[in-house]
Amino acid sequence: MKNNYKAKNRVGLLSLCLFLGYFGFAQTSDEVQLRKIYDAALTQGKAYDWLNYLSNQIGARLSGSIQAEQAVAYTKEELDALGLDQVWLQPVMVPKWVRGTPEFAYFETDPGITTNVPITALGGSVPTPPKGIKAKLIEVQSIGELEELGADKIAGKIVFFNRPMDARYINTLESYSGVVDQRVSGAMEAAKFGALGVIVRSMNLRLDDFPHTGALSYGDTPENEKIPAAAISTNTAELLSTTLKLNPDIHFYFKQNCKQFDDIQSFNVIGEIKGSTHPDEIIVVGGHLDSWDLGDGSHDDGAGCVQSMEVLRLFKEIGYKPKRTIRVVLFMNGENGLRGGLKYAEVAQKNNENHIFALESDAGGFSPRGFSFDCSDTHFKRIKGWKNLFEPYNVHLFLRGGSGADIAPLKNDTIVLAGLRPDSQRYFEHHHSDNDTFEHVNKRELELGAAAMASLVYLFDVHGMDAAKE
Amino acid sequence: MKNNYKAKNRVGLLSLCLFLGYFGFAQTSDEVQLRKIYDAALTQGKAYDWLNYLSNQIGARLSGSIQAEQAVAYTKEELDALGLDQVWLQPVMVPKWVRGTPEFAYFETDPGITTNVPITALGGSVPTPPKGIKAKLIEVQSIGELEELGADKIAGKIVFFNRPMDARYINTLESYSGVVDQRVSGAMEAAKFGALGVIVRSMNLRLDDFPHTGALSYGDTPENEKIPAAAISTNTAELLSTTLKLNPDIHFYFKQNCKQFDDIQSFNVIGEIKGSTHPDEIIVVGGHLDSWDLGDGSHDDGAGCVQSMEVLRLFKEIGYKPKRTIRVVLFMNGENGLRGGLKYAEVAQKNNENHIFALESDAGGFSPRGFSFDCSDTHFKRIKGWKNLFEPYNVHLFLRGGSGADIAPLKNDTIVLAGLRPDSQRYFEHHHSDNDTFEHVNKRELELGAAAMASLVYLFDVHGMDAAKE
Repeated sequence: MKNNYKAKNRVGLLSLCLFLGYFGFAQTSDEVQLRKIYDAALTQGKAYDWLNYLSNQIGARLSGSIQAEQAVAYTKEELDALGLDQVWLQPVMVPKWVRGTPEFAYFETDPGITTNVPITALGGSVPTPPKGIKAKLIEVQSIGELEELGADKIAGKIVFFNRPMDARYINTLESYSGVVDQRVSGAMEAAKFGALGVIVRSMNLRLDDFPHTGALSYGDTPENEKIPAAAISTNTAELLSTTLKLNPDIHFYFKQNCKQFDDIQSFNVIGEIKGSTHPDEIIVVGGHLDSWDLGDGSHDDGAGCVQSMEVLRLFKEIGYKPKRTIRVVLFMNGENGLRGGLKYAEVAQKNNENHIFALESDAGGFSPRGFSFDCSDTHFKRIKGWKNLFEPYNVHLFLRGGSGADIAPLKNDTIVLAGLRPDSQRYFEHHHSDNDTFEHVNKRELELGAAAMASLVYLFDVHGMDAAKE
Repeated sequence: MKNNYKAKNRVGLLSLCLFLGYFGFAQTSDEVQLRKIYDAALTQGKAYDWLNYLSNQIGARLSGSIQAEQAVAYTKEELDALGLDQVWLQPVMVPKWVRGTPEFAYFETDPGITTNVPITALGGSVPTPPKGIKAKLIEVQSIGELEELGADKIAGKIVFFNRPMDARYINTLESYSGVVDQRVSGAMEAAKFGALGVIVRSMNLRLDDFPHTGALSYGDTPENEKIPAAAISTNTAELLSTTLKLNPDIHFYFKQNCKQFDDIQSFNVIGEIKGSTHPDEIIVVGGHLDSWDLGDGSHDDGAGCVQSMEVLRLFKEIGYKPKRTIRVVLFMNGENGLRGGLKYAEVAQKNNENHIFALESDAGGFSPRGFSFDCSDTHFKRIKGWKNLFEPYNVHLFLRGGSGADIAPLKNDTIVLAGLRPDSQRYFEHHHSDNDTFEHVNKRELELGAAAMASLVYLFDVHGMDAAKE
């Protein structure tokens, strides 16, 4: 783009136009508040600094790890410093799975002729035997294909799930939904046909060298029948598939010594500003504090945590005193168990707490496009009435759909659940891999997400969902 | 984000839902065509490969450079290979400004105590004397401040323009408009008060170490009164400003030996598919083929060029035969003269060509959000009727506003001019600097932009702007 400034005598006019365009005319108090929120987020934002610490000083923080506990301590300390009405840790038992020494893998085209490939154990996988597993590969595109092939062709082999994400979806989360069964259930299903192990093409739309981990489920598979499972990169998957077409007899070797330990105590980190007029009506904003153990978990979900913390800080910053109780919840164990989300909902129900709205950010720290709402038609109609307030910020995509896994256990007939919807194009290049690191989060994009979240929370707070109470 | 796949017996249902959600029901032919365009762009796209070549094999391609001529030859060859009805080069004389040996700069806090800083000459600047310029600095926030200070305080010094981009604008192009006068007119205005030279804070919202170049104008300043001007990085600007507060007597030194040569012949690269029923109605899609001489010009505007080429290729790919003539124009000299755009419009007028629509992509290869239209109210109303077709692709932000500098000379009472509007948050971190390189362009985002452009061109082609001719 070239200069769109034309002549010096237009500067005055241009500045005036921008000034008017920026500050507008005759604004409602909601418009004024949203503008204050955005200005504070974009000029005095704290989210990026928090994320820097969480990502670069603490790093990856899988449930049960030392880093997860460091993240609990750090975020509690930072929330304490905000001068909220209350900050506390909510105990929750979480699974502890440890990757162990780095995995190792190669394929062998002829005896002794091997090519090493990057590999990562799937979260929750059992280890291979200490010497690893070496076997022929059988490539499949789906779990259904296992049935067609049968035990004859599968037993004694390593099953290679290679169905790629469908590039045609505009929302990459839909592409993800279309392939993730291979990672989640591939090992459980392949074991039924006598497979020795499973390797899965990473859930990534780009061809690159990063293997992406993520949770698997063994269902009710008996302990001694569980088989190890790992992810290979998209480039490795393409290479293996091509090589298999030339030589179906190649062998694949992989070794991993990951281990599941007993559950361990951890915490949800919670802070709140007490409501001035309806303290019994609670609004939650949150993300999950744990991450996978690859990269540093900046997009998934460091971004969502610092944005949620920022919502409360922004209210303090602009001097907004909420009518209702606004609570930030950093959920532990979002990745492999959802124990934090389940515990939070359990305690809320036990205490008869009335949650009217919960908002989660767990789809990356990218430029925000809007929100997805899980609520009644009546509520959605009311919410859509606020859409025009978000248009100046270009974050007015209001959809019906899922919210976030960590807040989903709060669902009931009256609550509104929502998820921030950032641009999804780059997300799966980072998700659950060594490529999810701080430098891939853009400061302004992160801040715009926090401002959008604070704006929506503000509107729920000031107007509520029950017209009579306004 | 964690797995949103819940139980294996839902896979079938999920796949079905995705299938239906994807293909939809009872589609209009426009819906079907747009889907075809997007599918082809996302699964068989060529734009990214073209950009790879343009950026990594040719690189930066300032008007008048060998690389600009290589880009002309390469893109013509690629258009030739598409089997269009006609591909040609349109001669145009362009300015040739050459940076020369790398610039050098430092500031001196005490005699002999110097700190080197990165610097880049502004495009079109005169050189410093061979030994460079060393003088005291005077920091200002605006051109208006020069008048207030007057020659007494400015003469014999280097003026340091340091007004930062305003982070509060959501659209960063507005922030840019608010500061670019310093770069464009700073040297011309400071010379009137006897300044020896000018340094300008780079137009970048992020604090980093890249100086950003861009065109300046000397207006009608006599040759012997022109003073040299350069850009410093935002980090350097902050450092200088802080240092000046501690010690107003620091000296700044810079040296550059850039040079303006005589105009040289270059070309617009043009290719077209002849319309089957209204060949006399012309639709143009384009970007500018030249770039600044820093980085490799991937976002500015390699992206726009390959997206425009892709529009015609996509029509070929899906077998769509346009009713009207669709022309891709890769404009030469978009950055420092607009000669290509002016020449194209001049020839079009001379030949009495009837252009009904022109679309430019020149705001980076980021995730597209919509289009900006420069047209009559009647036309805009008609265009808004297509907005719902773009909703499934999340590119339905239809605004009134500018289009693109290269197509602007085509403006008349009847033409519709439009610009692709990608997400603007990251643009000025790359724009006109060493940081505008291929790895910062995302393949899917580039492809989505091309598909959005092809979709809009398709709708103009099939429906036209004159209801009677449909």
